[in-house]
Amino acid sequence: MSTKQQIILLAHGSSDQRWCDTFEKLAEPTLTSVAGSRVAYMELSSPSLQDVVAEGAARGIRQFTVVPLFLAAGRHLRKDVPAMLEELEHNHSVSIKLQPPVGENPELGQAIRHVVEKTLSDS
Amino acid sequence: MSTKQQIILLAHGSSDQRWCDTFEKLAEPTLTSVAGSRVAYMELSSPSLQDVVAEGAARGIRQFTVVPLFLAAGRHLRKDVPAMLEELEHNHSVSIKLQPPVGENPELGQAIRHVVEKTLSDS
Repeated sequence: MSTKQQIILLAHGSSDQRWCDTFEKLAEPTLTSVAGSRVAYMELSSPSLQDVVAEGAARGIRQFTVVPLFLAAGRHLRKDVPAMLEELEHNHSVSIKLQPPVGENPELGQAIRHVVEKTLSDS
Repeated sequence: MSTKQQIILLAHGSSDQRWCDTFEKLAEPTLTSVAGSRVAYMELSSPSLQDVVAEGAARGIRQFTVVPLFLAAGRHLRKDVPAMLEELEHNHSVSIKLQPPVGENPELGQAIRHVVEKTLSDS
C-alpha cells in the first residue's frame, strides 16, 4: 500500500454515542492492522467523511478507498455517498474509490454463522 | 439445540429487492448450518417477523432466538423490536430472546479487517 493511499471505513453515524462506540470497536482490528486507516461518518457523528478526506488531502494523500461499514446498499450507498464522493474529489483534487458494503463479502456471512453457532452453544 | 427452538435472523427490510438479496446471501451459511433457522424482516419485506413467529408457533415451537443482522443497535433494536417481540410473545404464548446485533460480536470486526486487507491486496 502506497503511503499516499488511505482507507476510510465509512459508517452511517448517529446522535447516539453507543452507536458510534459499536462502529469504533468494529473498526479496531482494521485500524490496528492497516496503517493510516480511519473511521468516518456520513452524518450526525464526527469525524465526518468531509473532514477525514480534507485532512488526508492536506497531508498529501491523493487516493482514498472508502469501505462502507454497512451490511447492504440502500439509498445512502447508491445515491448519497457517490454524490458526496464526487464533490470531495472535485474540491480536493483527489481520487476516491467506493467499495461495496462489507456485508456483500462472503466473509461476513461466515462470521454471522459463527456468531449464531456460539449463541446456540451458550444457550 | 431442541427442535422446539428456532433461530430467526432479523433484517430491517427494504422496498428494494437488492437489499433483501444481500441479506439472504449473508444468511445463507447460517441457514445451511443451523436447522430450522429463518430470515425475517422488521418491515417492508417478507417474510415479516410476525409471519415467521406465527408459522413457528403453529408448528409447536415455543422458544425463539432473534439474532439481529444489524451492525449496531439504534432506535429499532432498542425500542421497536423489543415492543414487537413482547406483543408476539403475548399473542402466541411463546418465549423470544433478543440477542445483541451481530456487529457487537468481535468476529465481525475480524471479518471486516479481512475484507479491507483483501481490498488492498487486490488494488
